[in-house]
Amino acid sequence: MISFTCDYSEGAHPLILEALARTNMIQAPGYGEDPFCESAKAKIREACGTPDADVFFLVGGTQTNSTVIAAMLRGYEGVVAAQTGHIAVHEAGAVEFSGHKVLTIPQHEGKMHADELAAYLEAFHADGSADHMVQPGMVYISFPTEYGTLYSKAELEAIKAVCLRFGLPLFVDGARLGYGLASPGCDLTLPELAALCDVFYIGGTKVGALCGEAVVFPHGNAPAHFFTTVKQHGALLAKGRLLGVQFDTLFTDGLYLEISRHAIEMAKRVKAIFRDRLYIDSPSNQQFPILTPAEAEALRGKVQFEVWETLPDGRLVTRFATSWATTPEQVDYLESMVKP
Amino acid sequence: MISFTCDYSEGAHPLILEALARTNMIQAPGYGEDPFCESAKAKIREACGTPDADVFFLVGGTQTNSTVIAAMLRGYEGVVAAQTGHIAVHEAGAVEFSGHKVLTIPQHEGKMHADELAAYLEAFHADGSADHMVQPGMVYISFPTEYGTLYSKAELEAIKAVCLRFGLPLFVDGARLGYGLASPGCDLTLPELAALCDVFYIGGTKVGALCGEAVVFPHGNAPAHFFTTVKQHGALLAKGRLLGVQFDTLFTDGLYLEISRHAIEMAKRVKAIFRDRLYIDSPSNQQFPILTPAEAEALRGKVQFEVWETLPDGRLVTRFATSWATTPEQVDYLESMVKP
Amino acid sequence: MISFTCDYSEGAHPLILEALARTNMIQAPGYGEDPFCESAKAKIREACGTPDADVFFLVGGTQTNSTVIAAMLRGYEGVVAAQTGHIAVHEAGAVEFSGHKVLTIPQHEGKMHADELAAYLEAFHADGSADHMVQPGMVYISFPTEYGTLYSKAELEAIKAVCLRFGLPLFVDGARLGYGLASPGCDLTLPELAALCDVFYIGGTKVGALCGEAVVFPHGNAPAHFFTTVKQHGALLAKGRLLGVQFDTLFTDGLYLEISRHAIEMAKRVKAIFRDRLYIDSPSNQQFPILTPAEAEALRGKVQFEVWETLPDGRLVTRFATSWATTPEQVDYLESMVKP
Amino acid sequence: MISFTCDYSEGAHPLILEALARTNMIQAPGYGEDPFCESAKAKIREACGTPDADVFFLVGGTQTNSTVIAAMLRGYEGVVAAQTGHIAVHEAGAVEFSGHKVLTIPQHEGKMHADELAAYLEAFHADGSADHMVQPGMVYISFPTEYGTLYSKAELEAIKAVCLRFGLPLFVDGARLGYGLASPGCDLTLPELAALCDVFYIGGTKVGALCGEAVVFPHGNAPAHFFTTVKQHGALLAKGRLLGVQFDTLFTDGLYLEISRHAIEMAKRVKAIFRDRLYIDSPSNQQFPILTPAEAEALRGKVQFEVWETLPDGRLVTRFATSWATTPEQVDYLESMVKP
Repeated sequence: MISFTCDYSEGAHPLILEALARTNMIQAPGYGEDPFCESAKAKIREACGTPDADVFFLVGGTQTNSTVIAAMLRGYEGVVAAQTGHIAVHEAGAVEFSGHKVLTIPQHEGKMHADELAAYLEAFHADGSADHMVQPGMVYISFPTEYGTLYSKAELEAIKAVCLRFGLPLFVDGARLGYGLASPGCDLTLPELAALCDVFYIGGTKVGALCGEAVVFPHGNAPAHFFTTVKQHGALLAKGRLLGVQFDTLFTDGLYLEISRHAIEMAKRVKAIFRDRLYIDSPSNQQFPILTPAEAEALRGKVQFEVWETLPDGRLVTRFATSWATTPEQVDYLESMVKP
Repeated sequence: MISFTCDYSEGAHPLILEALARTNMIQAPGYGEDPFCESAKAKIREACGTPDADVFFLVGGTQTNSTVIAAMLRGYEGVVAAQTGHIAVHEAGAVEFSGHKVLTIPQHEGKMHADELAAYLEAFHADGSADHMVQPGMVYISFPTEYGTLYSKAELEAIKAVCLRFGLPLFVDGARLGYGLASPGCDLTLPELAALCDVFYIGGTKVGALCGEAVVFPHGNAPAHFFTTVKQHGALLAKGRLLGVQFDTLFTDGLYLEISRHAIEMAKRVKAIFRDRLYIDSPSNQQFPILTPAEAEALRGKVQFEVWETLPDGRLVTRFATSWATTPEQVDYLESMVKP
Repeated sequence: MISFTCDYSEGAHPLILEALARTNMIQAPGYGEDPFCESAKAKIREACGTPDADVFFLVGGTQTNSTVIAAMLRGYEGVVAAQTGHIAVHEAGAVEFSGHKVLTIPQHEGKMHADELAAYLEAFHADGSADHMVQPGMVYISFPTEYGTLYSKAELEAIKAVCLRFGLPLFVDGARLGYGLASPGCDLTLPELAALCDVFYIGGTKVGALCGEAVVFPHGNAPAHFFTTVKQHGALLAKGRLLGVQFDTLFTDGLYLEISRHAIEMAKRVKAIFRDRLYIDSPSNQQFPILTPAEAEALRGKVQFEVWETLPDGRLVTRFATSWATTPEQVDYLESMVKP
Repeated sequence: MISFTCDYSEGAHPLILEALARTNMIQAPGYGEDPFCESAKAKIREACGTPDADVFFLVGGTQTNSTVIAAMLRGYEGVVAAQTGHIAVHEAGAVEFSGHKVLTIPQHEGKMHADELAAYLEAFHADGSADHMVQPGMVYISFPTEYGTLYSKAELEAIKAVCLRFGLPLFVDGARLGYGLASPGCDLTLPELAALCDVFYIGGTKVGALCGEAVVFPHGNAPAHFFTTVKQHGALLAKGRLLGVQFDTLFTDGLYLEISRHAIEMAKRVKAIFRDRLYIDSPSNQQFPILTPAEAEALRGKVQFEVWETLPDGRLVTRFATSWATTPEQVDYLESMVKP
């Protein structure tokens, strides 16, 4: 059955498999000190417009979030996130496991608002009991968010301004970064994003790779001994080449954005299919149609999708995700099933 | 330059790449709930002779060690290991990061002795201050050890008997398990090993896979919610299929042991080359020749290898590792360089 | 200046100082194995009507909360609390420091509602992503709450019923337990409370002692090696006698409830003074008058109190606390200052 | 029965109890912001000759060690200690609980040697795998050591020089500091000690107080937000006055050293009693006589003492501790029992 459940239903982009096969028997050092990683880092630095960036390759999203956050916080600090932030809900407490609290503020279609962030931080510092509370130590946002929405350049600049005012680094979770940057609803380029944050990662797992996330400290500002922290968190791959070869391929000839744009094209068509019943106006690769239980039941026998939440009236918010691998034929089929 | 530095210098066995390519566009659920993982688990259960085993696929060795150990210990417990145990030295404190102490006992060519383990545990429980100390909560051994040595069946049974006497689970780190089982110096089969321990893992990264370790709880004795613990530790792969396809391939038609045997054949030849100057009589894929600094220097321009430690007299203990990928020609070349 | 800031502004009840002086030079074993602790434990077991209870003496509230919670949770579990729960806000992330998330649900004047707790747990278990989330592992409530309110017996039974239904232990933070039990608004006795929860503590620090909290596992259900966990958390006092002597005194001739009743009498008078402007109808020793900034400013030069929060209209919610040490003269003075 | 088991068998020095009684009903702010703490801090700064020192009062030794160590280390760092260091053995893994490894080096009568410390650090940095290992982040020594021995000024300077060379802070655990400084075998003054280390603590629990350890950052170099870290570790006392009053008393008119000197006088007499059978030549308040099992058995019915370890030949190393509370009559009695 055709699945729109998520953007990690297939393996890797064919060019990645080809590159893995081509380089397979070349001997290379372990732990990311191979020439494939070096090449990929150089291409990522160039794509980000950050010649001094420190780049590290980790394996998965939750791992990357918890490793980066633990490396950047002091023991008494927590990370501020929107209530729907992935780290706050769906990472099994990985941040808390490393000893830090996720400090949540309100969300609006998955995004935090700069003024609410400022208000939270002002209130914290005005609180006579602040010394008895977890100190806000960094700000986490996801781009796109868990609801497929995007921060505009102005919104991101406003958040960055608040971060600067309070001396907090800004961390952007880019597990689906390509699908954000490739969206027509995005007014940010990768270099603009890189310039605005203190650390971010370029998601590979959901954007064409078998696995892998490229962590970028754009200003050469990686925490001391980050390599050791990565190892300590179980996030260091012996065959780092697996990540190097993949990101080298994704950042050759603009493949990363090219396959992301394809996913967005497919998502636009999915959005059109459900036009009259969208929960959120998502500009990226995840669409959230509202279905009645009967509609969902009828559709379930034909295509796969996820149920995101249940509305008070019983209707279901569902999620249909496209990816680099989604074919026009799959969307045609979906359309024929939804509107027979 | 030809490298004998380690057993993770190349990519994956060609059959694995083929399988990845063949299955690439098949849509499958994420997080290890795909049919490839199911198939691989079934084959592993059969190979282990443990029809009730719980099997999980994690990504790397340090990650697997710290996740399994944290899942099996209570907060006040530590893990007993030989002083040279990988978890005690080369995992950047991953076990301590999860809150547990590594309790070390003496090592003999990388192995712990059952009687010394028993003596340690007896002394602990006889100590009037035991309540003020970390409680021993499990026993960790590596097979093969960090020095390439193997526990005999009798040695493992003796350790298991001590574990049973003190109510401690036995965990076998099998990062190089294939190279142990395939050694002529091994008098244990995989089912015999599985029967003797409470949890172990079958190393993929160093035995033909791009990445991946298969954790086996042979008696269906996985800790409750181990899936969530894996997620919490950043060890859950979204595209679990990457691990499933690889282990399915490795456990089809005996590939895992077949390629391990090849590595051992190559290692025997390396051992013969250095016969007169071995630091340890290793029966597996790692050999530890002693070289003078001059010899090492001369060789370094021709092949790559690791320096393991420096002896008091200034000579170097080096490590030459073979793997599934080592070719007879590479060993011929090494021989010609060593004995010109 | 007279202070109503908190209930830990003075030292200890005079009888405690007398007992400390009387027993001072008697030699006794350390770490809580002294006869004073034994005597205190026996009296606490009797007062609680729980002859099989395990009783431990710890030093302070935050320490007790984090130690008990860590001891009762498995690594993948979190603790459910009201949003205003002390562990969720004012303990500097002590629970997260030990690796666990505080899972918050709505609060109503500081209390959680049994039906909302049930709804939260139902939703959790119905969530298809539950395995990717922190598992609820216990329920935490404070009695009295951070807003001085009390659970009725019926409310506590309802919460307990939800706990039983979901297999979760119930932990009652009794940092101010005496001031709850002694309130006319309380329809629970200490034995009834003890019977309803799985672990609770009897606050000493705020109820007449220099320091100390008595943790009670009413059914003899202390976690294994809890002593070692206490030590590991830095919560074990070498001179455990300091805690033993104090609790022995507090539980001799009903002193604990007697001094608590006095505090409640004083609080009733404070409540009367501010009758027309109370933020919450608190039946215990903390009262929360609403003052205009001008009123607060005027009063501040005369008595000390705390500002709890600022209302949207700019008025201040303040806190006036009484204790075992509050004198009628102090309340007279307050009255004269407020109503001149 | 008279006990020489430890130096925490009695309550507090009578002057401390008097001070607690005298100040008991004075209202004061909580959490160490009271005038008693301020006064005590000023006196400690003066006694240490460190006018800029940051001083904090914590409750117990294990708690202080783990809080200070966690506050000073980054996540990837561990603390170097002698194998017999209290943190390495008898603190139930409190350091590991906060995520850090204790890195042990050899001990000599409880002390580390500067040259062995240097050799360890040199070897670490020369190790090609250093990035895969816990980074040494600070050095911990105890003064006096767990065996009652003392570092000479020259030895401490040598250790400090190694610390400076490797950029590591030096932490001195002074749980029994008074008994060290008051020993005729000590060639260090308190100001000299303070000048040589980066953080140390002045033990109260074992030197006349009911509880309490005064942490001193001699150069005003407390880690940022150390107050919050103390709270997070459950080490913040609500009634901080309890610690302030005690240390204020101990540092008034030289009481701390005076009562320490008394203990040393008593220890000298104990040492003389066992002169011909001492395990270690301890210059401080702990003496370690070697007794045959028969001798120990005979003595056990008359006085209390601790068995420290069993020698290979079956004889027992025992510990007899004196303290501020030991009376000449108690030592007379011991003498009469040992040499009847």
